Amino acid sequence: MSHWAPRFVANGVPLADFQEVTASVSRWEDWCAAWSARAAVHEEMGNKALAGGYNTSAGAHFTRAAVCYHFGKFLFVNDMAQMKEAHRRAVECRNKALPHLDPPGERVAIPYEGRQLYGNLRKPKGVAKAPIVVMCMGLDSAKEEMDDYENRFLKRGLATLSFDGPGQGEAEYDFALCPEYEKPVAAVFDFLATRSDVDPLRAGIWGVSLGGYYAPRAAAFEKRIRACVALSGPFQRSADFTGRPQMNVEAFRVRSKSANLEEAGKVALRFSLAECAKNITCPIYIVAGTKDRLTPHTQAEKLAASVSGPCVLSVIEGGNHVVNNFWYRYRDQTADWMAAQLGAAKR
Amino acid sequence: MSHWAPRFVANGVPLADFQEVTASVSRWEDWCAAWSARAAVHEEMGNKALAGGYNTSAGAHFTRAAVCYHFGKFLFVNDMAQMKEAHRRAVECRNKALPHLDPPGERVAIPYEGRQLYGNLRKPKGVAKAPIVVMCMGLDSAKEEMDDYENRFLKRGLATLSFDGPGQGEAEYDFALCPEYEKPVAAVFDFLATRSDVDPLRAGIWGVSLGGYYAPRAAAFEKRIRACVALSGPFQRSADFTGRPQMNVEAFRVRSKSANLEEAGKVALRFSLAECAKNITCPIYIVAGTKDRLTPHTQAEKLAASVSGPCVLSVIEGGNHVVNNFWYRYRDQTADWMAAQLGAAKR
Repeated sequence: MSHWAPRFVANGVPLADFQEVTASVSRWEDWCAAWSARAAVHEEMGNKALAGGYNTSAGAHFTRAAVCYHFGKFLFVNDMAQMKEAHRRAVECRNKALPHLDPPGERVAIPYEGRQLYGNLRKPKGVAKAPIVVMCMGLDSAKEEMDDYENRFLKRGLATLSFDGPGQGEAEYDFALCPEYEKPVAAVFDFLATRSDVDPLRAGIWGVSLGGYYAPRAAAFEKRIRACVALSGPFQRSADFTGRPQMNVEAFRVRSKSANLEEAGKVALRFSLAECAKNITCPIYIVAGTKDRLTPHTQAEKLAASVSGPCVLSVIEGGNHVVNNFWYRYRDQTADWMAAQLGAAKR
Repeated sequence: MSHWAPRFVANGVPLADFQEVTASVSRWEDWCAAWSARAAVHEEMGNKALAGGYNTSAGAHFTRAAVCYHFGKFLFVNDMAQMKEAHRRAVECRNKALPHLDPPGERVAIPYEGRQLYGNLRKPKGVAKAPIVVMCMGLDSAKEEMDDYENRFLKRGLATLSFDGPGQGEAEYDFALCPEYEKPVAAVFDFLATRSDVDPLRAGIWGVSLGGYYAPRAAAFEKRIRACVALSGPFQRSADFTGRPQMNVEAFRVRSKSANLEEAGKVALRFSLAECAKNITCPIYIVAGTKDRLTPHTQAEKLAASVSGPCVLSVIEGGNHVVNNFWYRYRDQTADWMAAQLGAAKR
């Protein structure tokens, strides 16, 4: 929970909402309902603003609603019907926000294995055919949590595409999580090649938490990736879940569609950059925190030591998982770095 | 302190900074130094970003530095030399941020009683001669704390002028606080009349905390004011400081340049809307929280009952002082309302 307050607040949950909702919940079983109730307050304000023609406000209220529904859902695999309903409303609220954001967003569908992955595409104002950052989620994050990160790239002249890959967000029901993440990323890059409004030749990749593994994993295989940011991702997972928070373990089991922990352990073992990291030749910016209880920062050091291209390693003293507590030590910095790698004008 | 976390965070202090700095301070005497040290971390990141040509980042880092210095200083009247140094750096950091904000800001000097008041003027992008909101501080706020509020008006096509009036921020050393706030506001409106880049005929006023008294007070006298927003201000203060937090009382004594509480009590008594509220004929939006321990929400009800023009009274259940905990219930809403009053196009 002490890790959660900084993450929730840094990603758009009002502090008093975090304090009140968590204080009101004594059993995990009540978590999703409590957050959904608070989310509905924001959703209602969004509907009211929209009805009054106050679109800027509506976009902000719906985004807050989406992130509250999202956190109600994020690790709540206990009751899938309840989770799916919170999830449906998170997506719906962010979709309602998209046209009213500054700059606005567009929901896109990316063909993948005969079905579709969904993403939110946003383009910076006043830039034709902008460079673009493909944003990879983690075990429990989803594209509806990305507003703050997206805004920092957009302000610097980069487009963003936050997408839910296998095992994540909208794709977690149909697709098991996928340690070989170069596969969905190839589909995303094929999709980008069909767009005339962004520049797929100046595309980077970014990933958070487990996405901090997915992004470099993809960069090792997908040569259309020009630069990579990896936040608190593992270098090599073990089959042993001992010592990890029970909720994360259970979410991993469910999202990997494993019947039990033994099966899940086999999936975990496939999370490895040991063989392929040497094939990462594009520039990479790696962030880790010394107080990360989910991914030891030594994993970041292993990755930094294994890549073949230029590397910035930022190990942040006192940083927790994803360094959400000291976000000001890397969020702007990585956005500036990515903009420079993709040739955007300095801002 | 429980009131402070929401205020600090809602106005730009990273949550982990609030938690770490307050946890590290056991004696009030150490408060200003601890916040100044944290502010210096942000200032250094600002300097580094600026040196690298990353102006967007620099603007954000300097603004965070300014707000941390500001909160180091805000009620710290114990050691004036230390307070002044923190204050100097708060102003310096915000000044360094101004040209790099989006939209940028400009420091302006407003002639007043043979000296000057200082303010930060920001204009919305793409709007010629924009309507403008004059922003009034409270007992312990200053123009360096206003970034979030300013941004909400700017997004809606309104210019902003945050200024330090008598007893506030840069004007608190030369000028005692001034219950007859129509005087400095008249000087601000005279100043606005000299500007060709904003529209003084479409100007509103906004005030927070004690500024929630100053703004309607000015509106009762200054007929150039077209609309007023008042947040958690008193209607009538008493000469009795019993039950108020000791630090606020001492700050009031110092900023009113009173030698003792008896003198301060006489100044407090001059804070009154009882006689003049009926002269408020412009539209007014009044916000109060039912859990405000500094200004009972009944003060807002008295004001609402006394004005002569159109009035929106928003008493927010569970809201603390300035409703900083539930800021999402009034910050966007008041900005939309002000934009409508001043004839800005809906956004």
